[in-house]
Amino acid sequence: MKTETPQDPDLQKLAELIDGIPYALLTTREADGTLHTRPMHTEAMESNGTLVFITLASTAKAAEIERDHQVSLAYMGNDADIVVAVAGSARVRQDREKLKALWKPLYKAWFPNGVDDPDLALL
Amino acid sequence: MKTETPQDPDLQKLAELIDGIPYALLTTREADGTLHTRPMHTEAMESNGTLVFITLASTAKAAEIERDHQVSLAYMGNDADIVVAVAGSARVRQDREKLKALWKPLYKAWFPNGVDDPDLALL
Repeated sequence: MKTETPQDPDLQKLAELIDGIPYALLTTREADGTLHTRPMHTEAMESNGTLVFITLASTAKAAEIERDHQVSLAYMGNDADIVVAVAGSARVRQDREKLKALWKPLYKAWFPNGVDDPDLALL
Repeated sequence: MKTETPQDPDLQKLAELIDGIPYALLTTREADGTLHTRPMHTEAMESNGTLVFITLASTAKAAEIERDHQVSLAYMGNDADIVVAVAGSARVRQDREKLKALWKPLYKAWFPNGVDDPDLALL
């Protein structure tokens, strides 16, 4: 995770707590009210505390977030030694420059069309 | 976790996958739409696949579930080697006999009034 050290001490604490936990569990709400949880690799924390993920804009999760911005993110350390849950608002963001800065070659395993895929987006 | 081995092979698989993961992350929806996630210790799987937790009937989570039954449960193994997410419907259940069967003395750390607390309930 790339952290742009936040000013807010609470956000600094959050960054410290989740730094060693690569996968968050992201919960979104489907149109029929079903709650849907899946693991997401955390790419970055911005200085205002925004947590950044890479996704495809065509996925169900992106559609769910466009419809209902409210999401939950949970981080659980090994053997549940740390549990951090964050409730907030999410949106799909197009930012090719940021995408390229966060991209790693091994991400091709998740996104086989690579960093130039126009469907690739930030969450 | 006490498992009453389910007949359904999918539920058997679920029981196997989550058997080594004591804490689930339970997500509920608050009245204003905020999604709320917290860890819960899984007590049992019933033969029909129902997952059983112990809670207090007076908690926010119980109120949230009474209002909106739809919940998500996520199980993540160490280093995210296993991730299982289950979407379903939850309810608060009063069953003193079952509570007593599931109760362990060390649960007093979470529920200081003990197994005879009338506020104690199953989820």
